[in-house]
Amino acid sequence: MVKVLAFDIFGTTVDWWTGVGEQAGRLAAERGIQLDGAGFAEDWRGRYVPSMDRVRRGELPWENLDALHRRSLDDLLDEWGIGAAFDEPARAELVRTWHRLPAWPDAAGGLARLRTRYILAATSNGGFALLTNLVKAEGLPFDCIVSAELARHYKPDREAYLTVATLLDVEPAEVMMVAAHVWDLAGARAAGLRTAFVERPLEKGPDGRADRAEDARADLVATSFTDLAGQLGC
Amino acid sequence: MVKVLAFDIFGTTVDWWTGVGEQAGRLAAERGIQLDGAGFAEDWRGRYVPSMDRVRRGELPWENLDALHRRSLDDLLDEWGIGAAFDEPARAELVRTWHRLPAWPDAAGGLARLRTRYILAATSNGGFALLTNLVKAEGLPFDCIVSAELARHYKPDREAYLTVATLLDVEPAEVMMVAAHVWDLAGARAAGLRTAFVERPLEKGPDGRADRAEDARADLVATSFTDLAGQLGC
Repeated sequence: MVKVLAFDIFGTTVDWWTGVGEQAGRLAAERGIQLDGAGFAEDWRGRYVPSMDRVRRGELPWENLDALHRRSLDDLLDEWGIGAAFDEPARAELVRTWHRLPAWPDAAGGLARLRTRYILAATSNGGFALLTNLVKAEGLPFDCIVSAELARHYKPDREAYLTVATLLDVEPAEVMMVAAHVWDLAGARAAGLRTAFVERPLEKGPDGRADRAEDARADLVATSFTDLAGQLGC
Repeated sequence: MVKVLAFDIFGTTVDWWTGVGEQAGRLAAERGIQLDGAGFAEDWRGRYVPSMDRVRRGELPWENLDALHRRSLDDLLDEWGIGAAFDEPARAELVRTWHRLPAWPDAAGGLARLRTRYILAATSNGGFALLTNLVKAEGLPFDCIVSAELARHYKPDREAYLTVATLLDVEPAEVMMVAAHVWDLAGARAAGLRTAFVERPLEKGPDGRADRAEDARADLVATSFTDLAGQLGC
């Protein structure tokens, strides 16, 4: 019955914690600053949902994730007391760290198996350019990019999920949202999609609190994309 | 300077003349009708630009290409005197012949080479689902689908070309439109894109009049996607 698998990206498919942390640490070091890159990445990521919520509530007009990342970065640099070291080009480079993140080790192989039977969409709150860059750099075999930017609504707004079904000309129940986040799957389920929770215990680092399978109400629970492929008979 | 190659699909990347002709002929034969499939495909394709122009002029609200194909099919079946043999599901199946068309022999290999250096977008007037299905079935290595449906404007409307640049966060002059059609490249040029004409002399069959390189005003002219890859140093 499911025809399309729609994958969340940050945390579910790629490791933002390692990727942003390392790049931010390096960019800081180039400016003579010793930065706790992982802590900085965590703090930045913590502003992600609140910043989208401002758009979702209509307090901000539509802006893509690069623009929201930039707003929160400006605050963050001030709060960390290192704003003076990062000029305009350096801030743009920091925002672009989110465009090149390492995939989880099972991602490419699992997707390749799943692609033999399903249409695979990259369905993230990241912008269209960001997702295209990120997927290309990691060689992830998606069939299409369906950024929230196409809906001009962020997940968990209903429109973000329904746009996947509309663009791919299938019913919402023929789309399965795959994510490592309870809030994302709750949104998908409310929009009529099927759901698969993939556990990513290291999403927020070894000491972080990643969402756990027991808190998710999902049609399927998997430990990796290869496990998901096995469960779906691919 | 060019970062994105935006490929037209019907005629440029895939062979609609052979694909629709053969499938239509077979579907007719299953209903006991001997049909000149290629002639039928040509007649159908001939209604493509006029049907889009009705949307472009505002005579019709936005409809995706499947819907326009269906409108012209209904007229076509009547004019060919075979309407009675094609019920609703059969007409839907005819419309879907445009979703599975053979790629030109050089397409996949040329795209694979070009992809090492450029972002490749499938930039057609076909709908998002149609393009995703078609690209997937032929294993064509595009990085993203940028259907005219995302702009809700058909080529050669300016908006259809500019949407590629906007979504991929580049300047219009950083996008090169690749097409076998003079009108498409004229539209791309008017929107500020770079242009490459690819000759497809068999696009309308051995006796058809395909557009010729000498009639195109393009930055590059190539005989195939592999020739284009060579010219672009890939």
